[in-house]
Amino acid sequence: MKTPAIFYHAGCPVCVEAEHQIADALDPARYEVELVHLGEQPTRIAAAEAAGVKSVPALVINGEAFHINFGAPMSALKG
Amino acid sequence: MKTPAIFYHAGCPVCVEAEHQIADALDPARYEVELVHLGEQPTRIAAAEAAGVKSVPALVINGEAFHINFGAPMSALKG
Repeated sequence: MKTPAIFYHAGCPVCVEAEHQIADALDPARYEVELVHLGEQPTRIAAAEAAGVKSVPALVINGEAFHINFGAPMSALKG
Repeated sequence: MKTPAIFYHAGCPVCVEAEHQIADALDPARYEVELVHLGEQPTRIAAAEAAGVKSVPALVINGEAFHINFGAPMSALKG
């Protein structure tokens, strides 16, 4: 069975870039990647928080949360 | 040719956890993953900074930097 990997985002440019590079880079043979836009699916927020998600974009692999570009630096927003 | 993916870390628990989960999760068919311990290989710091790395752990995919658990939260250090 594949390991679940949920990529949480909110549609911002930083999220989209991380989604394309990191979520797409996961091994499809081992991971079942799901993309969740919390702005469009607010009912998923509780589960994200329960997994430890404090900010987006974040990747939850097998129940463990990893924040990507946590507190995105201003430079990332200027691009 | 595979896309280069360099995982920079400094050996801390947060880095090691991210390394095991994220660097190992990349698709080996498409990415050539290199692990660089900047504490042990300080000569690699300049290249990491040039790629945009501001903190570790960070993943540079095809020259683009993504900070993982940027400014690791205190909770991650208590584990």
